[in-house]
Amino acid sequence: MTEEQSIVERRPVPIILDCDPGHDDAFAIVLAATNPEQLSLLAITIVSGNQSLEKTTLNALRILHACGLSSSTIPVAKGASAPLMLPELADTCTADRHSVGIYPVKVHGETGMDGADFPLAVIPKVDERKAWNLMADIVSLYSAECPVTIVATGPLTNVALFVTLYPELRNRIRIVLMGGTFERGNIHPTAEFNILHDPEAAHIVFHSGVCLTMIPLDLTHQVLVTEDILGKIRALNTPFAKNMAGLVEFFRDSYQKTFGFSSPPLHDPCAVAYVLDPSRFDAQRIRVEVETGKGLCAGQTVGDFYGCFFSNQPKNVNVVLHMDMKWFWDRMLQSLTKANETSPLNKD
Amino acid sequence: MTEEQSIVERRPVPIILDCDPGHDDAFAIVLAATNPEQLSLLAITIVSGNQSLEKTTLNALRILHACGLSSSTIPVAKGASAPLMLPELADTCTADRHSVGIYPVKVHGETGMDGADFPLAVIPKVDERKAWNLMADIVSLYSAECPVTIVATGPLTNVALFVTLYPELRNRIRIVLMGGTFERGNIHPTAEFNILHDPEAAHIVFHSGVCLTMIPLDLTHQVLVTEDILGKIRALNTPFAKNMAGLVEFFRDSYQKTFGFSSPPLHDPCAVAYVLDPSRFDAQRIRVEVETGKGLCAGQTVGDFYGCFFSNQPKNVNVVLHMDMKWFWDRMLQSLTKANETSPLNKD
Amino acid sequence: MTEEQSIVERRPVPIILDCDPGHDDAFAIVLAATNPEQLSLLAITIVSGNQSLEKTTLNALRILHACGLSSSTIPVAKGASAPLMLPELADTCTADRHSVGIYPVKVHGETGMDGADFPLAVIPKVDERKAWNLMADIVSLYSAECPVTIVATGPLTNVALFVTLYPELRNRIRIVLMGGTFERGNIHPTAEFNILHDPEAAHIVFHSGVCLTMIPLDLTHQVLVTEDILGKIRALNTPFAKNMAGLVEFFRDSYQKTFGFSSPPLHDPCAVAYVLDPSRFDAQRIRVEVETGKGLCAGQTVGDFYGCFFSNQPKNVNVVLHMDMKWFWDRMLQSLTKANETSPLNKD
Amino acid sequence: MTEEQSIVERRPVPIILDCDPGHDDAFAIVLAATNPEQLSLLAITIVSGNQSLEKTTLNALRILHACGLSSSTIPVAKGASAPLMLPELADTCTADRHSVGIYPVKVHGETGMDGADFPLAVIPKVDERKAWNLMADIVSLYSAECPVTIVATGPLTNVALFVTLYPELRNRIRIVLMGGTFERGNIHPTAEFNILHDPEAAHIVFHSGVCLTMIPLDLTHQVLVTEDILGKIRALNTPFAKNMAGLVEFFRDSYQKTFGFSSPPLHDPCAVAYVLDPSRFDAQRIRVEVETGKGLCAGQTVGDFYGCFFSNQPKNVNVVLHMDMKWFWDRMLQSLTKANETSPLNKD
Repeated sequence: MTEEQSIVERRPVPIILDCDPGHDDAFAIVLAATNPEQLSLLAITIVSGNQSLEKTTLNALRILHACGLSSSTIPVAKGASAPLMLPELADTCTADRHSVGIYPVKVHGETGMDGADFPLAVIPKVDERKAWNLMADIVSLYSAECPVTIVATGPLTNVALFVTLYPELRNRIRIVLMGGTFERGNIHPTAEFNILHDPEAAHIVFHSGVCLTMIPLDLTHQVLVTEDILGKIRALNTPFAKNMAGLVEFFRDSYQKTFGFSSPPLHDPCAVAYVLDPSRFDAQRIRVEVETGKGLCAGQTVGDFYGCFFSNQPKNVNVVLHMDMKWFWDRMLQSLTKANETSPLNKD
Repeated sequence: MTEEQSIVERRPVPIILDCDPGHDDAFAIVLAATNPEQLSLLAITIVSGNQSLEKTTLNALRILHACGLSSSTIPVAKGASAPLMLPELADTCTADRHSVGIYPVKVHGETGMDGADFPLAVIPKVDERKAWNLMADIVSLYSAECPVTIVATGPLTNVALFVTLYPELRNRIRIVLMGGTFERGNIHPTAEFNILHDPEAAHIVFHSGVCLTMIPLDLTHQVLVTEDILGKIRALNTPFAKNMAGLVEFFRDSYQKTFGFSSPPLHDPCAVAYVLDPSRFDAQRIRVEVETGKGLCAGQTVGDFYGCFFSNQPKNVNVVLHMDMKWFWDRMLQSLTKANETSPLNKD
Repeated sequence: MTEEQSIVERRPVPIILDCDPGHDDAFAIVLAATNPEQLSLLAITIVSGNQSLEKTTLNALRILHACGLSSSTIPVAKGASAPLMLPELADTCTADRHSVGIYPVKVHGETGMDGADFPLAVIPKVDERKAWNLMADIVSLYSAECPVTIVATGPLTNVALFVTLYPELRNRIRIVLMGGTFERGNIHPTAEFNILHDPEAAHIVFHSGVCLTMIPLDLTHQVLVTEDILGKIRALNTPFAKNMAGLVEFFRDSYQKTFGFSSPPLHDPCAVAYVLDPSRFDAQRIRVEVETGKGLCAGQTVGDFYGCFFSNQPKNVNVVLHMDMKWFWDRMLQSLTKANETSPLNKD
Repeated sequence: MTEEQSIVERRPVPIILDCDPGHDDAFAIVLAATNPEQLSLLAITIVSGNQSLEKTTLNALRILHACGLSSSTIPVAKGASAPLMLPELADTCTADRHSVGIYPVKVHGETGMDGADFPLAVIPKVDERKAWNLMADIVSLYSAECPVTIVATGPLTNVALFVTLYPELRNRIRIVLMGGTFERGNIHPTAEFNILHDPEAAHIVFHSGVCLTMIPLDLTHQVLVTEDILGKIRALNTPFAKNMAGLVEFFRDSYQKTFGFSSPPLHDPCAVAYVLDPSRFDAQRIRVEVETGKGLCAGQTVGDFYGCFFSNQPKNVNVVLHMDMKWFWDRMLQSLTKANETSPLNKD
């Protein structure tokens, strides 16, 4: 695919990581932060999702620091504190929001990254700009020929606001998102969390005309952190590694209890990995729509794989259903090793 | 499973086949009509679906006659001429209904069984009773200990009316239905034809409390009539076999053109095969709901495979995702051979 | 209107009253039972709605007896015990159904006719036929030139099953129904109870092609039993009258507490009154659709009063928004007086 | 009501008019621009709706100039060019959007203000800020004790983005909006144009916690420009007056043809009039929700007038169903006279 080749050719690819850490987001940050020849991580923007905006922001800062990076070199900016259609939540306290069950506490815990305890002596400053404005400031510096890739691993609220507020910049970005499913869901029988959390935002992004690549659960449910892989992380035997292993262990227990998985899936780093090397992934270009209604299928991504049902609508998404698993785990473990080497957590 | 064992033990199992022939329904009739030691085919009831009620009735009579059977020994009764929620269609002419696109002409053709031309010198009489009343008359003769199995291979309109009108007979039946999907659909991205054609009927049946077994597209899209199998049918080299092969060929061309399949799936006989020998099938008991709303997912069957989303609702369906393919084709070809031996079409 | 004139001309009009008594249904029965020159009450069919089928049947028998009539001369038949799409309720016990809040106990009480205590020494026999089959047997005796009017004052489940099961008899009936609203609802902000209780049944009836007249809340919320009128009922000063007054008083208290009405509306007898003399009513023929989805507007009747929104669909309903109030109360009080004169309750 | 009194007391009330002119928006601008003692018109922000953003912006500039005002003293800023959920429209050309029928051309014509031809020798500059950012800049200058009133007479896209992007400023604004209906709709049987054009925006605004007053069609369909009133406008006998009369005449013809009205309603100035003197209006505080689903009732405003259906949700809207009509027309005609006196259109 010519599109993908062009991404490969211009290295490093400039990316903004929009995330809501989150256990698997933590691994996505590690992967994004440790491959400077291939990815230029320009900023991290935060959205509420796996936990409240306050908590996901703090978690991102923790991981960034654990990787030996600072928010003064890689700006971190807060975005939406609630889904588009729940504006009344934006100014209520976290406790209240939690009580209405908006955050997936069973899966990510009260902190959003339960199982680890990344120390942070001083809480670093976050950028004063809202996520979408920071995105705009950065993207404006690039051209349509060298677009910025927004890697989105949380609900799409920030990204939807960006494309709504800055339609003139849509042709200067690509989006690679982790979200959606075409088989079983993880928050409802047929819905994936990132999409169901803000289906209207997903609809806006899927209809934006921006070049989209989608990493659905169909792929990520194959990306399991087996005991063998977990063992390799533990074997690094440092404070950093113990914390990363702790994330995996909490996630494993969550997935065992809730879904009966023996090993936990690692959703979000797959989206970063796609930008690292799209040639390791099989993508199919189809029309995908998002169900924004309130029935049984709320938040479902509906894809026309046969190409015969939505044929009057243009294809809008590259759906990735397969990747080179061995390659992925090699790269993920390399990145963990690299981060481990420079982690300030290990220096005392 | 105790339920299934009891079915196996009491042989032959009394069945009523509710169908809308239909190419694959034709093979279901052949399979149901040629295994008297295991299945006692008590009646065939007809519903509109693959074509109008008039045409599906005529097709059933053609196939029954082709198998050497008569509607005077196996009663054939007409049921609903339209889905529950389209009652205005019930008395409009076929041409009109066709024009609104209610029948899947691209897949089954104008006759509902295009590709074959089963002769019928005299059109046999059909039973005067409506399908649901015939079902009730038959089922009343049986007890809860020896229930009748309704094998439903079309839209569920007739079955829904039966369970609505005769709630007192629900505990004397089991239902094995071909319908629904948990992956790709065949009439909309996530909907299967039999369910989307009458979603309210499906909802009624799925909520009826009757013991249900469901054969979804997830299974039947694996049951492909390969050129090898088609060759074996053709090799019988009789008028009967030529007609059956003609059905396969038309269906193959439909599926190639519309869905890009290389070989056509044979949905409906899988439901009859399940009754022949449930031990050849892997079933998973879960909660299944039907989306009766009008959005993107209208007519979708939504199954809680993880058991954690609809956990306040009882499990209501045995979903079959796998079967012994070799066994199935052996039995299907045996049945075709048996029907071929006695077919009046071959006698001249 | 020619249609209405023909009704006026052929007197008495043969009617079947399909109801779910119900406080206001009780007045509908009185009105239907006491005007033999204008209405020939052929049968009363019962549906669940204001209370369970058992209770609404018993209530109908009580009122019929109180009017001095017997179910041996006017057959009373049971119909549906649950809405079409809640078939799982059909064989659960009343207590369970009640607990899921399906009956409007706040408005009609535990008996469905709280506030009165019509004695019934011996519970009369009900017809063995299901409501829809009794309707069919009666309607078959009439021709399209002299159709039977089905007056429906409860949820439309029975009527929907009748038109579904006997499409060939649709041209021999007219339907006058109390139900729906085009302003405020009484069970949800924009939904009326009879429609929301079984929206699919309403959809079937509204799409059936049968000549329909609709008495919505827009009309019946003007038909208030003022203290003056209640005083006239009380003034009859008999056991029968005390019971009828008791119904009004309970209904008044319900409507005060729940909706803030000073006097209670008398919905159902308006539908019978329409058949008594359509010239006392102003009807507007428009297209009406029923919202069968699950959103905020579930069960709403949506009418195209401007004729410009649903213009590709034929007009299907005569909507009555005004009637001659003085005439109505004269007739209603005359009927109560007549029933009072012959009531066995007053004889001892 | 204390709230309203406080508005009356602090005069002039600072307002921002968010509109999509539009025939009746034009009268709203005139009313807002000519009462400086009572209203301080701080800005006009423009949204697409009655026509494309380009055309509604041009129309606003035309009217402002016709009133003798300039966009250099009253900033005019563009906002959303499409509803939130139709982001793909944002960068398509006007012709395309028009072809998909998104603008109500039958009612407002190709220009959005057909029937008039307000000259504009030089097209004035518009503010460089997006509508929501201009709103924020202005509102920031005020306190919660002296909030800015946003008078919204078009779809609520701009206002929804403002409350989403600046949650911290919500307590410094009030919103008076023309939109919604609780009886008949003007774009679908039960939906009003401003709401149905962007139901998600309306949902966001109705859930924002901001103090909202709503002027629905229930009120504005009583505000008819009779021939008598039209005569008074014509009698001013100037170029300005001829143009304003031309707007009325085109609107009258639209409403006659489409809805059968004899005189056209003047929706939008009612919202401005409310701010002029709330004591002339009867408001009822209730819970209002917006149907954002896709069924028959899409875009309907659903109000719990009885207070018994949405009782677990706080009341969120002051719904105005009545106003002092004589007062309104006096003020409207006064404003037209005042604008006429200073209009540059009349000077030659």
